[in-house]
Amino acid sequence: MRNILVIGSGKSTSYLIKYLLDHSEKENLHITIGDLDINNARKLIGDHKNGTAITLDVFNKASREEAIQKADIVISMLPARFHIEVAKDCITFGKNMVTASYVSDEMQALNTQAVNKGLVFMNEIGVDPGLDHMSAMQIIDRIRDNGGKMLLFESFTGGLVAPESDTNLWNYKFTWNPRNVVVAGQGGAAKFLQENTFKYIPYNRLFRRTEFLDVEGFGRFEGYANRDSLKYQEIYGLQDVKTLFRGTIRRVGFSRAWNCFVTLGLTDDSYTIDDSENMSYRDFINSFLAYSPTDSVELKFRHALRIDQDDMIWDKFLELDLFSATKMVGLKKATPAQILQKILVEHWTLDEKDKDMIVMYHKFGYEKDGKKYQIDSTMVTLGEDQTYTAMSKTVGLPVAIATLAILNGKIKTPGVQIPITKEVYTPILKELENYDIRFKETEVPYLGYNPLTL
Amino acid sequence: MRNILVIGSGKSTSYLIKYLLDHSEKENLHITIGDLDINNARKLIGDHKNGTAITLDVFNKASREEAIQKADIVISMLPARFHIEVAKDCITFGKNMVTASYVSDEMQALNTQAVNKGLVFMNEIGVDPGLDHMSAMQIIDRIRDNGGKMLLFESFTGGLVAPESDTNLWNYKFTWNPRNVVVAGQGGAAKFLQENTFKYIPYNRLFRRTEFLDVEGFGRFEGYANRDSLKYQEIYGLQDVKTLFRGTIRRVGFSRAWNCFVTLGLTDDSYTIDDSENMSYRDFINSFLAYSPTDSVELKFRHALRIDQDDMIWDKFLELDLFSATKMVGLKKATPAQILQKILVEHWTLDEKDKDMIVMYHKFGYEKDGKKYQIDSTMVTLGEDQTYTAMSKTVGLPVAIATLAILNGKIKTPGVQIPITKEVYTPILKELENYDIRFKETEVPYLGYNPLTL
Repeated sequence: MRNILVIGSGKSTSYLIKYLLDHSEKENLHITIGDLDINNARKLIGDHKNGTAITLDVFNKASREEAIQKADIVISMLPARFHIEVAKDCITFGKNMVTASYVSDEMQALNTQAVNKGLVFMNEIGVDPGLDHMSAMQIIDRIRDNGGKMLLFESFTGGLVAPESDTNLWNYKFTWNPRNVVVAGQGGAAKFLQENTFKYIPYNRLFRRTEFLDVEGFGRFEGYANRDSLKYQEIYGLQDVKTLFRGTIRRVGFSRAWNCFVTLGLTDDSYTIDDSENMSYRDFINSFLAYSPTDSVELKFRHALRIDQDDMIWDKFLELDLFSATKMVGLKKATPAQILQKILVEHWTLDEKDKDMIVMYHKFGYEKDGKKYQIDSTMVTLGEDQTYTAMSKTVGLPVAIATLAILNGKIKTPGVQIPITKEVYTPILKELENYDIRFKETEVPYLGYNPLTL
Repeated sequence: MRNILVIGSGKSTSYLIKYLLDHSEKENLHITIGDLDINNARKLIGDHKNGTAITLDVFNKASREEAIQKADIVISMLPARFHIEVAKDCITFGKNMVTASYVSDEMQALNTQAVNKGLVFMNEIGVDPGLDHMSAMQIIDRIRDNGGKMLLFESFTGGLVAPESDTNLWNYKFTWNPRNVVVAGQGGAAKFLQENTFKYIPYNRLFRRTEFLDVEGFGRFEGYANRDSLKYQEIYGLQDVKTLFRGTIRRVGFSRAWNCFVTLGLTDDSYTIDDSENMSYRDFINSFLAYSPTDSVELKFRHALRIDQDDMIWDKFLELDLFSATKMVGLKKATPAQILQKILVEHWTLDEKDKDMIVMYHKFGYEKDGKKYQIDSTMVTLGEDQTYTAMSKTVGLPVAIATLAILNGKIKTPGVQIPITKEVYTPILKELENYDIRFKETEVPYLGYNPLTL
């Protein structure tokens, strides 16, 4: 038996564990799942004979080392900041390792040791980062292999609610950490490359400079800029492109409404509101509007944000009970962002039967033999239920497939890496198609950066 | 002879030094002015026999200690962060000290030692902070002494250009550090108290929530919120007021236009622009607007900021040559704020004959015998020329008068302090009237916080 140690058994591990157990007979695998709380691991294993749940505190050196020594390969599904101790042990005991997280500086620093020991440390092999890398690089490599020269790359990903569970006016529910959604885009201007010039969008304009994305069978979406569009320019070999843009996908209309929160200051996480505990939602909103002895909070809100009487955006705010004088914030010393999060969680939490959806949209513009072309590539994955979500599927399956490929010597180039080489992405993308994770390519006219975007 | 040591001879010291020299005969004073560069000190002293300019590097311990030991009182007009070494020496050698700067934590920590040694460490005795403290506390104390209960306190100060030198469409020129003007209001939401509730304004709305201020003989101004409105609540004893607001004064229309810079992201000082050196002003503006193969930067700017064709605000931007394709930024690796500052300095620098103006506006709302009252108190001081500016007058005279009062034992309560006691402000405000720095009080109907403000 070959031993796979999975550390962490959170939300995104269901498909990962299912895949490994499903392959355990044929591939001769035993899967050990270590977590502080083993209840979820037990549930995911069920009565499968090739799975074991163990209590594992990653900060307990002795038990961590013991578990890692017993494994042939280690998957860390912990939050990114906890990987490093595991990674160091993997160096010490000569184990390959897989994570779905961004490569930290500390992780990168282990590269030479990993190479010297012939170890594969595969990172960023979830959905975003992960599936985005693989699906983009496959097409970029193909364009180049065919003699094309890349001109434009845009890439959008969104975790959304599936159409059948899309029951609110925002067309949005939390499928991941709500806090990340509330503070998204903060911390500096978004920077990207548009027709050879750098462009900058400050936070207060971020959600007003979206572009539309149409996905066949799923209708229209919108994308707003990520802060880090240039992050992969070198890694993808796109130093000479004219346009480089990475964004986040929402349903049309979300961003314009969200921008009202930004404008009022409701997403600010840098200070606490006095007496937040005893505020109603109405009081909370009113604290960002001027005092008036007579005017309603509603009218002040409409006036401040220039919301016309017949603008449908208004119903989005009503749906959140934003002006309720009876619903209480009930959080002590809370920041505006924390209070907003509480209000949103109340309305945007997935019901038990709700399904989520992952949408990815890439645009590749290139030049060949003096002509310009564009390929759009889209992927939509739907969740099955609240355990087997689209998020856990698109995160977990690439991790699982990569793990088995490393174990079987199919991925063997050593070092700290991300899945951007043919050796890695080709077999993984191929196998993902068996699980209905597939990209649909369309040739479209090359327009350069969408000239209708503002 | 009694020796006064003035450290620093920058822009705000002209009136200070003039006052001290003018009083030197009668008061038996010798004034030593120490600076790294003694040219300005020499110019200010002229051939006055009671003044000496010395080269003084405040970081050279030996020469600093020597100069301080020789003095009877020390005035530090250095930037605030350089006071502390001087202050420690003043403790060591038993010298009184005066500064126009905010009390730092380090300065405050010297209080016990100052009290024990019977030393007066007077701070915040310039214009803002300084004259604002004194003029506000004089009226607040009077209201209280007459049995009134404070309900509202609003206080606004602005450094502006005098009407006769007001020659641009922004009605503004730099009379102080331009950088502070460009980044004003950044770093967190403005917080204040309005009719018993805390109100918060994020940076992107700060310049759109102004209130109007009319000053007899000078017309209409506007005020936007400072970040620190609550800073003096305890110090002024205003714990029970319903409304507390501090703001900055500009001419009407400045803030609405300035907000366009904020909205586009031109005031951001947190990142540098690529290839800023080789950008025209037009390129700079365009980097905050979406790419278009056809549309003009002008139209994209108008559209993004919703500036109608007949809106006079447009001329303000034209006046700055914001859309010039020939004027170059010429600054390497500059932040948006640095580039904006360069453009503004080009247009908003005082000409040699220009005069500046300091405007202060306080509102005091109070209740007495069941009735509500309001007193508005205003002060306008005009500069004489580019040396004897209103800024240097309103900063330097309070410092000078306080220094002489301490030397003469009229201000004697020891400790690290600011000018909020009758002992301090009464004689100083009285003497300032001789220099035409006087507050004009008007009784107005008490309206509470201006209900027309948005």
